[in-house]
Amino acid sequence: MDIRNYGIHIGSLPHGDKNTICDVAGVRVGHCTIDNALSKTGVTVVLPCEGNVFRDKLIAASFVLNGFGKTLGLVQIDELGTLETPIALTNTLNVGLVHDALVEYMIGVCDRDNTPLRSVNPVVCECNDASLNDIHLRAVKKEHVFEAIESASDVFALGDVGCGKGTTCHGLKGGVGSASRQITLDGKIYTIGVLMQTNHGSLRDLRIDGKKTGEEIEPLLCASEPDKGSCIAVIATDLPVSSRQLKRILKRAAIGLVRNGSYLGHGSGDIFVGFTTANRLYESTSPFRQACLLNEDSIDVAFRAVAEAAEEAVLSSLLNAHTVTGYSGKTRRALCELIDPARL
Amino acid sequence: MDIRNYGIHIGSLPHGDKNTICDVAGVRVGHCTIDNALSKTGVTVVLPCEGNVFRDKLIAASFVLNGFGKTLGLVQIDELGTLETPIALTNTLNVGLVHDALVEYMIGVCDRDNTPLRSVNPVVCECNDASLNDIHLRAVKKEHVFEAIESASDVFALGDVGCGKGTTCHGLKGGVGSASRQITLDGKIYTIGVLMQTNHGSLRDLRIDGKKTGEEIEPLLCASEPDKGSCIAVIATDLPVSSRQLKRILKRAAIGLVRNGSYLGHGSGDIFVGFTTANRLYESTSPFRQACLLNEDSIDVAFRAVAEAAEEAVLSSLLNAHTVTGYSGKTRRALCELIDPARL
Amino acid sequence: MDIRNYGIHIGSLPHGDKNTICDVAGVRVGHCTIDNALSKTGVTVVLPCEGNVFRDKLIAASFVLNGFGKTLGLVQIDELGTLETPIALTNTLNVGLVHDALVEYMIGVCDRDNTPLRSVNPVVCECNDASLNDIHLRAVKKEHVFEAIESASDVFALGDVGCGKGTTCHGLKGGVGSASRQITLDGKIYTIGVLMQTNHGSLRDLRIDGKKTGEEIEPLLCASEPDKGSCIAVIATDLPVSSRQLKRILKRAAIGLVRNGSYLGHGSGDIFVGFTTANRLYESTSPFRQACLLNEDSIDVAFRAVAEAAEEAVLSSLLNAHTVTGYSGKTRRALCELIDPARL
Amino acid sequence: MDIRNYGIHIGSLPHGDKNTICDVAGVRVGHCTIDNALSKTGVTVVLPCEGNVFRDKLIAASFVLNGFGKTLGLVQIDELGTLETPIALTNTLNVGLVHDALVEYMIGVCDRDNTPLRSVNPVVCECNDASLNDIHLRAVKKEHVFEAIESASDVFALGDVGCGKGTTCHGLKGGVGSASRQITLDGKIYTIGVLMQTNHGSLRDLRIDGKKTGEEIEPLLCASEPDKGSCIAVIATDLPVSSRQLKRILKRAAIGLVRNGSYLGHGSGDIFVGFTTANRLYESTSPFRQACLLNEDSIDVAFRAVAEAAEEAVLSSLLNAHTVTGYSGKTRRALCELIDPARL
Repeated sequence: MDIRNYGIHIGSLPHGDKNTICDVAGVRVGHCTIDNALSKTGVTVVLPCEGNVFRDKLIAASFVLNGFGKTLGLVQIDELGTLETPIALTNTLNVGLVHDALVEYMIGVCDRDNTPLRSVNPVVCECNDASLNDIHLRAVKKEHVFEAIESASDVFALGDVGCGKGTTCHGLKGGVGSASRQITLDGKIYTIGVLMQTNHGSLRDLRIDGKKTGEEIEPLLCASEPDKGSCIAVIATDLPVSSRQLKRILKRAAIGLVRNGSYLGHGSGDIFVGFTTANRLYESTSPFRQACLLNEDSIDVAFRAVAEAAEEAVLSSLLNAHTVTGYSGKTRRALCELIDPARL
Repeated sequence: MDIRNYGIHIGSLPHGDKNTICDVAGVRVGHCTIDNALSKTGVTVVLPCEGNVFRDKLIAASFVLNGFGKTLGLVQIDELGTLETPIALTNTLNVGLVHDALVEYMIGVCDRDNTPLRSVNPVVCECNDASLNDIHLRAVKKEHVFEAIESASDVFALGDVGCGKGTTCHGLKGGVGSASRQITLDGKIYTIGVLMQTNHGSLRDLRIDGKKTGEEIEPLLCASEPDKGSCIAVIATDLPVSSRQLKRILKRAAIGLVRNGSYLGHGSGDIFVGFTTANRLYESTSPFRQACLLNEDSIDVAFRAVAEAAEEAVLSSLLNAHTVTGYSGKTRRALCELIDPARL
Repeated sequence: MDIRNYGIHIGSLPHGDKNTICDVAGVRVGHCTIDNALSKTGVTVVLPCEGNVFRDKLIAASFVLNGFGKTLGLVQIDELGTLETPIALTNTLNVGLVHDALVEYMIGVCDRDNTPLRSVNPVVCECNDASLNDIHLRAVKKEHVFEAIESASDVFALGDVGCGKGTTCHGLKGGVGSASRQITLDGKIYTIGVLMQTNHGSLRDLRIDGKKTGEEIEPLLCASEPDKGSCIAVIATDLPVSSRQLKRILKRAAIGLVRNGSYLGHGSGDIFVGFTTANRLYESTSPFRQACLLNEDSIDVAFRAVAEAAEEAVLSSLLNAHTVTGYSGKTRRALCELIDPARL
Repeated sequence: MDIRNYGIHIGSLPHGDKNTICDVAGVRVGHCTIDNALSKTGVTVVLPCEGNVFRDKLIAASFVLNGFGKTLGLVQIDELGTLETPIALTNTLNVGLVHDALVEYMIGVCDRDNTPLRSVNPVVCECNDASLNDIHLRAVKKEHVFEAIESASDVFALGDVGCGKGTTCHGLKGGVGSASRQITLDGKIYTIGVLMQTNHGSLRDLRIDGKKTGEEIEPLLCASEPDKGSCIAVIATDLPVSSRQLKRILKRAAIGLVRNGSYLGHGSGDIFVGFTTANRLYESTSPFRQACLLNEDSIDVAFRAVAEAAEEAVLSSLLNAHTVTGYSGKTRRALCELIDPARL
């Protein structure tokens, strides 16, 4: 389900074949969803590239738009500008356990190909799904993380799955959303893909391509709630950029959130993590390496691409989610049930 | 001229009496405009409070949304969280001279009331008005800065005046814009005011309250240009916040830029500087001072206030500007001449 | 064992009664040490105050001197300037598990006094003890974390205990060190205490109060190794400071590392986390709170205090450690066995 | 005059031929000294490379150790990681004027070779020389800046010259210091050079290679004063590093300050700016460029090099300065007059 089905095109750039983060070659996504009477939660894993990412690291960056969140692993990304594990997304109270599972996973990966590993920096992001999920149960276990990794593919489900099973976006059922944009530089196509765990915003503030959809829908629902929650964006590209440039690109994912009506509320960890598959840091004994880098004067189109993909990814999470009723009886409605296509 | 004249209300919070930054008690704004065949530029000064701001400093913060700009004075604000001079805005190539003029001004102020001054940190922000202004002339001189300071009042002109005489916003004539919002906490009204020097955005991307006004207007004009330029926001409040909290509030001024269609383009210094008139650091020999601070749980309404005021301030700069033709014959049209009120 | 036993006084300020971080009232420290044929590791917990720190949070800050480390929890500290859990220190590959244990601990604490907890931000720091400890075993388990918490007291062991069982400092046996300094402001005594997990530096570079002790000792040992490792400092005070001021104070803990000869090597996560027990954020429904804050002009003595305490804490870790032989047969010698008191 | 004349070798790495920042090929330094009854001040300019640095920019970085300073130009360096003008150093109240002079200089440079310049980001650093210099006179004028630039050479004076004429370091006459270190990677020699404007520290705290020289000298002088002032370091290298890596290197210049006894006092702007002459950003219409980058595993030797050069640069400023008596009759003694070579 895609916003284009409603006749709406976000922005002006073309998207990739899948219109997901997996349009960036090598990126795979896996979910493990926990869906029972008490638990509506799960884990989603982004595998950033083929091969052993610990041995042959990727250039990476982070941007903390609002730091009221528990994302793990950013200290080292900010210092070294590299990513050395998959990126996992889960609920707030399970980040430590998922971190531990990723450590175990990476020890296994490195054992298998004889790569020494003494230290490793997993990246684990989170949203708080406590309104639908009995979060004190900390339902995500190590085996769920491994299951998500094993199921990873370049085709993956969207909406109320994995880390998005219990999240709420603009008062509606949020979840996992994804979109991509393509840009052409020097005759070659590059892709920027976004995957989001959406758990932010209030219903009244929701806008779709500028229209005040939230104000129209609000009367259909009983209650309005304040903006509490978070939004995580994982951003992938094959554009050859430095960590500094990538951070500038990540920052523009905020545009997507804001265009959809977020006020970047206090009670929210809005955190973006990104990587490029270009200029990979293959293991080497040389003190130097060659890199191809984007000239800064050409970066604007990448800013636009990530903004458009982020805006569409929020909508993708809303349009693909089904109505979910949580452990306490609270229900988050699917946007699709509430909007009249003609109205958009 | 106000966006409400077109029947549009930005956001949901009330504005202050003047709907400008001067709704924050004590804040005054002065312009000096340089308008001749070659020069379309000037200087605008925000006097943040009554009395000697160097002796009795204000709590302050900055937020650099895009650092491709030359704003002076942020290093010390970031370290100490204080403001000790007026804030001046001018063109890019005159920031040094205006800095020097503010040093001279503050020496005079402190001489007059016997406040020792060995060191002072003026804050000078800038936008690049080179498309209308022959910027190599560096037309702003010391006397213009003093003139702007002397003319400061709580009522001031908007649009193509002062530092906004030569700026371009979304391909149209930008300039100086301002707006305010009021919030009520514990039964007391607090104000957040924004003053902007707008010089950012492309015409095609312009949106007004969600509507794609830029796409409608673009055919009326011959040429479209890329997003080059900057946006400065000066933010004042009387809310008792710490420097850290103020930085969080400043960050949400970006929402206003984005709602109006900015993609936060590379060639842009988008920089926000703010201060609170509460908890002023009156000269003291005691090692401690008492302060009243906002509880973080109550900060959301301040986020919304600054976002709404910033969004309206951009529109204020556009709606109050007149068409200006620059030294090279290039013309920037006034928005008012191009929009049909019924269309908004 | 104390450097004063060697006739050396670090700096000029007095220390507290215990000359540890527990000179700050309310601070307690607990260890759980894992010491067997394969594992030389453990966990150390700093309980920052009496009562429920989640409900009644402390003002806090962090400073990342070198971010090649895996410390968890800094994103939220940097955004909100608060601490809401004990601080745990352990080995690099156990941080996720210890994080998970602290989540469980805090759920229990909050359950017991009916404080709602939906989200919590544990702070977990680490050093890499892989040269003595078979780190792939990830020997620290949940029960060890609980044991460390339960054993917490204002009197605690130093040297090769808890998180310091397997660490190496300047090529010698490092571990846990602590020291404190007192400062007097306005007639009242305030304390700054430092606890360190030392795992940094090369032997040749070691200096004690300026003397090149490392160069003297090096010939006594067979092998020299490069500076690989980390140093964690937990800093406590009862001085009424803001989060911004506290960060400035934390930064000066680097002075202690450098005076002892560190070059702040690349392969090192040098990370400082601190809190003040003053101005505690007691639960409140009011939008405002009163605070007492240090005037910045009086902050210099706090800079000196933390620098002196940090310098002495490094020495404390070295002087209190015993020689330890690790799982692979590698031995880290105790400084006390190598230095002739007359030489210092 | 060199610390080696006293038989002291700082660190273990070799220095370049000149043992100054000009050991990095292409770097030149010029002074203009203002020395009369009232004024003891001046300006020092670092020309970072041959050719037009605005057109063909250098990779650059900054590190703010203590931001209580007025350095101009860091916002853009932090965003874009580039340097596009000479770096000027002067007194605190002249930074604006010197900025303005550099704008004028760069307009001239670009006019002469037909490089369009609409915007330019001069970097101007400062220390406060008000104890010897009647700083309110703002004695530095535009012509002094041009004179300093014109006189630039790879051989330049040290001590009480240029921006260092009126500065005070550890209670003694400070000024301009410089040193360099060489490192060998892959069989090729690279150089790191440091130029410092020293104006920090208290006499009692001064250490030379670990010895407490300050405590010995203090009785020879009448008065002791608190640590007020600043320290600026300009760091040049020809090592091919990214802006992120360069920032990590700059940070280690703090080691030099601390080894010499600084406590990084509050009233001090300790600010480091650096550039590499490698990977220069030659003007190009291509969206991409090739770069050679240091592998992070090889960065440690660069950390050590900058630490050693910074430590020696502080001493260089002290050893080359003559005793200066200021406008108010205050005298700052030269270190050479006070130390007995046998004592060091």
